[in-house]
Amino acid sequence: MRIVFLAIGDELLRGESREGNGAVLSDRLGTRGVRLDQVRVLRDDFETIASALQDLCRTPTLIVVSGGLGPTDDDFTRAAVARAVGVEVVRDESVLDGLRVWYQARGRTMAEANHRQADFPQGAEVLANLHGTAPGFTLIHGAARIACLPGVPREFAAMLDDHLDDLLQRSGVATLHRHEATFRLFGIPESDLQVLLSRLPHWSAATMRSLPSWPEIRLMLAPRGDAEAFATLLTHVRGALGTRIYSERREDTHAAATLRALAVRGATLAVAESCTGGLIGHLLTEVPGASATLLVDAVTYADDAKREFLGVAAGTLATHGAVSEQTAREMAEGVRYRSGATVAVATTGIAGPAGGTDAKPVGTVFVAVAGPDGTVVRGVRYVGIDRSRFKLSVAHLALAELRSWVLRQG
Amino acid sequence: MRIVFLAIGDELLRGESREGNGAVLSDRLGTRGVRLDQVRVLRDDFETIASALQDLCRTPTLIVVSGGLGPTDDDFTRAAVARAVGVEVVRDESVLDGLRVWYQARGRTMAEANHRQADFPQGAEVLANLHGTAPGFTLIHGAARIACLPGVPREFAAMLDDHLDDLLQRSGVATLHRHEATFRLFGIPESDLQVLLSRLPHWSAATMRSLPSWPEIRLMLAPRGDAEAFATLLTHVRGALGTRIYSERREDTHAAATLRALAVRGATLAVAESCTGGLIGHLLTEVPGASATLLVDAVTYADDAKREFLGVAAGTLATHGAVSEQTAREMAEGVRYRSGATVAVATTGIAGPAGGTDAKPVGTVFVAVAGPDGTVVRGVRYVGIDRSRFKLSVAHLALAELRSWVLRQG
Repeated sequence: MRIVFLAIGDELLRGESREGNGAVLSDRLGTRGVRLDQVRVLRDDFETIASALQDLCRTPTLIVVSGGLGPTDDDFTRAAVARAVGVEVVRDESVLDGLRVWYQARGRTMAEANHRQADFPQGAEVLANLHGTAPGFTLIHGAARIACLPGVPREFAAMLDDHLDDLLQRSGVATLHRHEATFRLFGIPESDLQVLLSRLPHWSAATMRSLPSWPEIRLMLAPRGDAEAFATLLTHVRGALGTRIYSERREDTHAAATLRALAVRGATLAVAESCTGGLIGHLLTEVPGASATLLVDAVTYADDAKREFLGVAAGTLATHGAVSEQTAREMAEGVRYRSGATVAVATTGIAGPAGGTDAKPVGTVFVAVAGPDGTVVRGVRYVGIDRSRFKLSVAHLALAELRSWVLRQG
Repeated sequence: MRIVFLAIGDELLRGESREGNGAVLSDRLGTRGVRLDQVRVLRDDFETIASALQDLCRTPTLIVVSGGLGPTDDDFTRAAVARAVGVEVVRDESVLDGLRVWYQARGRTMAEANHRQADFPQGAEVLANLHGTAPGFTLIHGAARIACLPGVPREFAAMLDDHLDDLLQRSGVATLHRHEATFRLFGIPESDLQVLLSRLPHWSAATMRSLPSWPEIRLMLAPRGDAEAFATLLTHVRGALGTRIYSERREDTHAAATLRALAVRGATLAVAESCTGGLIGHLLTEVPGASATLLVDAVTYADDAKREFLGVAAGTLATHGAVSEQTAREMAEGVRYRSGATVAVATTGIAGPAGGTDAKPVGTVFVAVAGPDGTVVRGVRYVGIDRSRFKLSVAHLALAELRSWVLRQG
C-alpha cells in the first residue's frame, strides 16, 4: 500500500502560497515508520483532479488530499472525487445543521455558498473538523482509499493528528514504531553525526531519521525489534553526544531549553550582543514567559555604545579592538553588573561580508559568559558561511555556552 | 504547451529536506507571465521516474526536472530520461575534461564516481552549470521537451536564470510580459489591497500577482496590452498606496529600505525594544553595512533595565506602567540621548499569551520615534495574532515609523 499526497490549489502553483502540508504529512508518517511515496500539486481544475485520482486508484494507494473543500466555485475536490469514484454528490443534513450551529455560536449568518461544505460523494464517511468549518471525508474505491482534508495548514495538521492513525490502520498500513526518541542537537555537523552514531554498540537496534535545520539537527531514532537493545543504544547516544543534546522533547527550541535550564537554578540573564545584532534576544523572546529570566539585551553595535551602555574601557577597545577576547569579557561583565543579572553572555565578531582583516578574518567571533564564579571566553572562527548563517551559528553558540555554565554550577 | 515540474529525491519525501525548487520555478515563470501547471515529487526510483516521464511526454509539455544528477548510485535521472525517450546513455568526453579542470583548479582529485556526471542520454544538449559540477541537459521527445537541472537549490535557481528564457522560447511558450513592476508593501491587509487596486482607473491595463509574506506583501503588476495605460496605472498605484510602498526593488527588505532612507539623510539610529525583544535589531543587522547607521539597540525587557540603561523615570513606570505612551517616549528619548544618534525608535507592548489586562489587553503596543524635532508616539492594538506574529508586526511598524520620520524631514 503506497501513500500519495495530492495538494490542490492554483495559489500553490502561482508562487503565491508555498505548499507545506506535504512536509507535515511526511513528518507525521515518518514518526510512525511509514514513508510517503509521492507528492503532486494540482491546479483547481475539475478534469485534472478527477483524472489524477482515477490514475492513482489503479493500484493499492492511500491518497491523502488537501485543499479544494472551501465554499467557492473553484473548490472542486468533492465533485472530482465523486467523478473519479463514479458516484453522485449528496448533501449531509446533519453536517449542515452542525455548520449552522458553528456560525450561530459566533454570531454570524451562514451564507448560501457555505451549504456546499455539507456536500459529500455518496458513500463517503465524514471526518470531523474540530478546528474550522469544512469537514473532511474518506471513502474506498477499488484497492485505494481516498481521504480529503482542508488545505488551511493549521486545520490540515490538526486533522492529521485526529485521524491519521485511524486512516493508516483501516488502509492496512503497518505502523512499525511509534515510540521514536527525539534528540535536538547543536554543535555537530550532520556528516560527523552519522559516523559517530554508526560506531555505537547496538546501532542496528534503531532506524534513524535526521532533520537538519541549520545550525541545529533533530535526530529521531525508532526501535527496530529488540526493545532492550534500543534502550541500551539510547544510553550510548546520550553518552556520545553529551551536551550537544539540548533537549529530548519533540517540540522545543534551543532558546526555550536554555531559559528552562537557567530558570531551574533561579538565575536571571543579561545579554550583550555585537555581531549577532539582536538575534539572541529575538530567539529568547520567542519563548512565552521569557521575561521572568531575561532582564536586558544590550545590542552595542558601535564602539561608543560598548563604552556608554556596557562600560567597556576605551583602552581595551583601542588596544585589542572591538572583536577580541578582552572586549567580549568586558561586555559580559559590564551588562551583568549594570543589570544585576545572575549570568550574562556577550558576543563580538565579524559577520561580513566586509570588515575582515588578516589577523581577524570574517567569521571570527568571541563569546563570553560572566557569572558569579568568573568569566569564560571562547573564540571560534566560522569559515564559508554568509552573514545570516554566521549570526545564527553565533547565537546558538551563545545559548550552548549558557547551558555549559548551568552545568558547571553542578 | 503546459509546464510540469518534477522534483526527484527520497529526502524530499522523508521530511528531511523541504522541496523548494518548485516555488522558485513558479516565481520565475510568474515573472514571465507563464504558469506552472503541476508539481510532482518522486522517489529516487528508476521505474517511477521513467514511467512518470513517459506519461507526461504524451501531451505537449515542458518538463523541468530537478535532482538525481549526482555521482551516487541512487541518482537515476540520466538513466530514467534515456529509458523514457528510448535511447542509450553516452559519455561526453569534453564535459569530462571540463570536470577534471574544475577539480584540478580546486586542488582536488576527481573520484571515479564523478565520471558519471559527464553521462547524458544520446541526443541531449548539455546545459552548462557555472555554479557547481553537475551540468544539466535538455532534449525533445515527441511533443515534449525535458530539461534536467541539479537539485541543489542554489545551483537550480542560478541555472534557471541562465537557461529558462531559452528553454521557454524553444518550447514555443509565449512569455507575455517581462517588465513587471514590483511594489513591496507594509501596512495594508491583502483583502483591502485587492479592493483598493480594483477601483483604480486603468486597472484593466495590468495583471496582478501578490505574494504575502506576513506582515508584508510583494505586489507585482505586469502590463496587459497598452503600455501607456499601464504607466498611468502605476502612477495611480503609487498615489493610492503612498508610504505603504517601502520599495519598488525586486530584491529588498523593509529593514534595508529603512537603513537606506536614513543613510541618505546622514542619520544614525538607536533602538530601544521591549516587546519586540531584539527582533528590530536582528532585522536591521541582517543588512550588510548596517553598522554604518545603527549604533545601539537596548532590549530592556525588565523595568529595572528601562531605568538603568535608558533612564526611564521610576515615576513614569509607577504611574503609567511599562506599556504606555509615556514609557515609549522616554525609552526613545533616553536611547537617543545616551547613544548620540540622530533618531531613535522604541517599542513597548504586550506580546502575550500572558500579561494582558482589561485596560491593556494582549496586543497593545506603543511605538515612539524621537528625533531632533521632537518625539511622536503611536498606539496600536493587534487582535488575534500570536506572539511571533505580534513581534513581527510591531518590528515592521517601527521600521515604517522611522521611514515616516525621514519623510517628515522633507
